[in-house]
Amino acid sequence: MDEIDPGDFETRVKRSFSRQAFMGTIGAELTRVQHAMVEIEMPFDQKLTQQHGFLHAGVIAAGLDAACGYAAYTVIEPDASILTIEFKVNLMSPGRGERFLFRGEITKPGSTIIVADGRAYALSDGPAKLIASVSGSMMIIRGRQDVTG
Amino acid sequence: MDEIDPGDFETRVKRSFSRQAFMGTIGAELTRVQHAMVEIEMPFDQKLTQQHGFLHAGVIAAGLDAACGYAAYTVIEPDASILTIEFKVNLMSPGRGERFLFRGEITKPGSTIIVADGRAYALSDGPAKLIASVSGSMMIIRGRQDVTG
Amino acid sequence: MDEIDPGDFETRVKRSFSRQAFMGTIGAELTRVQHAMVEIEMPFDQKLTQQHGFLHAGVIAAGLDAACGYAAYTVIEPDASILTIEFKVNLMSPGRGERFLFRGEITKPGSTIIVADGRAYALSDGPAKLIASVSGSMMIIRGRQDVTG
Amino acid sequence: MDEIDPGDFETRVKRSFSRQAFMGTIGAELTRVQHAMVEIEMPFDQKLTQQHGFLHAGVIAAGLDAACGYAAYTVIEPDASILTIEFKVNLMSPGRGERFLFRGEITKPGSTIIVADGRAYALSDGPAKLIASVSGSMMIIRGRQDVTG
Repeated sequence: MDEIDPGDFETRVKRSFSRQAFMGTIGAELTRVQHAMVEIEMPFDQKLTQQHGFLHAGVIAAGLDAACGYAAYTVIEPDASILTIEFKVNLMSPGRGERFLFRGEITKPGSTIIVADGRAYALSDGPAKLIASVSGSMMIIRGRQDVTG
Repeated sequence: MDEIDPGDFETRVKRSFSRQAFMGTIGAELTRVQHAMVEIEMPFDQKLTQQHGFLHAGVIAAGLDAACGYAAYTVIEPDASILTIEFKVNLMSPGRGERFLFRGEITKPGSTIIVADGRAYALSDGPAKLIASVSGSMMIIRGRQDVTG
Repeated sequence: MDEIDPGDFETRVKRSFSRQAFMGTIGAELTRVQHAMVEIEMPFDQKLTQQHGFLHAGVIAAGLDAACGYAAYTVIEPDASILTIEFKVNLMSPGRGERFLFRGEITKPGSTIIVADGRAYALSDGPAKLIASVSGSMMIIRGRQDVTG
Repeated sequence: MDEIDPGDFETRVKRSFSRQAFMGTIGAELTRVQHAMVEIEMPFDQKLTQQHGFLHAGVIAAGLDAACGYAAYTVIEPDASILTIEFKVNLMSPGRGERFLFRGEITKPGSTIIVADGRAYALSDGPAKLIASVSGSMMIIRGRQDVTG
């Protein structure tokens, strides 16, 4: 008895996200899963900072890469998987805030390569502040047991 | 009585690195600090993984960005600081290994913008395996109290 | 008698664009100059192709870099100038079409660094086809005679 | 009677390069073809400049992309082809010189994705001056008639 519909991208994204131990380590949660768009949020945590007390660029990259990767999962076949080829992160403002939001969106859903763009925001009182953007490429992997899901 | 020579880049790099809480969180250590080149190492840790059990791309980005940033610190004036503008990471092999080495090197030590390149390696028995590369730009910050060191 | 208002960004963009000899070489024209957004168009030309007969990636990069750079000119002081630090281009579809459109938009108008994003489209009969995207950083230059305008 | 050995990468690179009309347009020539490394050179030409009279960033990108792409051709099967997925160019010094040299080298010769890095130099009297670097990803294409060679 299988209660999970393998064609349901939201279920697949949630299941895979829950296996990303690092997302738990940084306190990140999936907050929105739509076709071709995923959002992840996390609270500020002093243990994730760089030398000036701001969120470390590597944590920003992690949130952006995960948001883009899971946005890609929503547009591929249920039994395929995603490997990131590369991403570029532009850091625009210090990672200073109470919470952070990472949004990834699919720009080009190719048959082999998927291109995604994303943005990171610091959330506090007042309007969200854009702190970083990402532009990345991912490869769709089919039929490799070691990278499923 | 000041035992620290502020012109000593190795001391400055170590002091700043020790303030990067996230480096402690991922178990990273400075293992080499030379003029225009810095190496950082860390052990594999399951809490830093993505969904396939490999080192998360965000942790790879963190190690590479830190190695490049501290390589930049070795070529600037003692009272200046560094902000990363952007970096691109190419992921070449899964982050699978017992330890990881991140090396950052200065490609262009400009008066305002510094360009650095770096590589990440997985270390196990046998030869080091290249898993990722980075190419990034940093800005030299002078005279801003909030981003010193 | 000075008929040109130096505060008029459209005039400054047009004047600078007309001095980019390479834009003439590839047949490119400014078709839209707005605050924080510039469009450039050019016809297909066999002399600008790569080995498969498509528009060369370098020409796509040229159009995107110019569109982003001039979008940056619209948000800076009249006597400042722009130097590109870096750009990343993602190539999504072959450069096949009758005409090409390059749009650059300012994502972050900083006081020293400007971040811009852009897209390239192939135009033929039917809807415009997204062929490439760019994400780049530029530096605002003030008070250097050799890079004015 | 076939005088061309299809397994000879130098021949294949030269043949493909000669079909890149844009390389002719900018006066570029292949000057070195080795396993995993290719060099391209070109003279300065006023018609390839940006508004300050320096070599246009798009021409620099073209030379770097071509050098990396042909370096990739030297490591793939004779009947495969290469498509650039993305490249990032860091511009480090103005494109000012009598001639320019673009060198592309293979960093990771994967079975599907090839990662290459390259550098551009301005040549005049005196030592070569590093003006730009590139880091890019290419995909190996097999069995598609429209992108052969």
